[in-house]
Amino acid sequence: MFLSIDGIDGAGKTTQLERLCKWLRESGEDVEFVRDPGSTPAGEAIRGLLLDSDLEMHRRCEAMLYMAARTQLVEARIRPAIAAGKTVVSDRYLLANVVYQSVGGEADPELLWELGQIATAGIYPDLTILLDLPADAAAERRSGPADRVERRGVEYMEQVRQAFLQQLPRCQGETVVIDAGQSVDGVWSDIRDAVQAAIPRQDR
Amino acid sequence: MFLSIDGIDGAGKTTQLERLCKWLRESGEDVEFVRDPGSTPAGEAIRGLLLDSDLEMHRRCEAMLYMAARTQLVEARIRPAIAAGKTVVSDRYLLANVVYQSVGGEADPELLWELGQIATAGIYPDLTILLDLPADAAAERRSGPADRVERRGVEYMEQVRQAFLQQLPRCQGETVVIDAGQSVDGVWSDIRDAVQAAIPRQDR
Repeated sequence: MFLSIDGIDGAGKTTQLERLCKWLRESGEDVEFVRDPGSTPAGEAIRGLLLDSDLEMHRRCEAMLYMAARTQLVEARIRPAIAAGKTVVSDRYLLANVVYQSVGGEADPELLWELGQIATAGIYPDLTILLDLPADAAAERRSGPADRVERRGVEYMEQVRQAFLQQLPRCQGETVVIDAGQSVDGVWSDIRDAVQAAIPRQDR
Repeated sequence: MFLSIDGIDGAGKTTQLERLCKWLRESGEDVEFVRDPGSTPAGEAIRGLLLDSDLEMHRRCEAMLYMAARTQLVEARIRPAIAAGKTVVSDRYLLANVVYQSVGGEADPELLWELGQIATAGIYPDLTILLDLPADAAAERRSGPADRVERRGVEYMEQVRQAFLQQLPRCQGETVVIDAGQSVDGVWSDIRDAVQAAIPRQDR
């Protein structure tokens, strides 16, 4: 079983990923937790290039680097874990790559899904959970009400949020949108229900 | 005009690329010389990862990294040079990527051509020159007759050579195979003829 959680920054991914992994382990699952990009030496090195703001990069070059990191993640971690009967939990996956690289019209989402098919060799989450939250609520959570300078950031993040909602149905496997505006316990309860609903369909 | 020279190591690429650039400059062309991968800060950083033998990498991850470097090369160097009316000369290009990543059956050449279409955004050499030489002749040039330990290397390079010959017709634009077993002057004469034959078709 392969689960991924995605969403804009501030939607509460980290907290919920921790709860999910803990709950799965307590339920007897052997959990392989990964983050995309990262979680392999090559992936971390590539992530380092992507975070190097001195390095001028075309949007399509960035997209290819994310894909390269994901290929290594799939082949070195996810594919072997699935083969060993583990439950893979991923902090982000292809969906975020499509969203962030295509928002603002700089790259074609179709082309990114196509690249993703090659990068992942068709290994997709059985369930993709989108934690959805209006961008201004996410910004407030992080730093109180957005000031004028932060405002453009919020507008961009709202575009990203809308792109997540728009691209989610294109994911292979099951997908669910969870209202991340609830309490932490409320969000977790929805996640657990979605995972429980997905597990039997996988294992039966 | 966009020219690329390719072939196995030892076929004499470097010498001929120097002659070609010198001759083009003397003919009044404004020459932009690039090597693939490389020739941009991001491309050199990616090349660094590819050369880091401590970094375990799946063949498909490597392929994606070459593609990322090529995307940056196209967008930062080749596309602007072509737009400015320069003559671009490239030491290797997509062809070598398809050949080296697919030889031995580890990746599907079709998939690599497809990735290449995305990476290059359809910017291909007008003329691709393949310097062809049997692998044992290339090895002898470099180090005298191959000993037993080197033998496996030669067999691999012969597979690479055959893959170059096999994939060359898949290149967009014109292609030519030149016998690199001739003298340096003989090879250069053939290259010049091929470029002269290609220029009028481009510029008319």
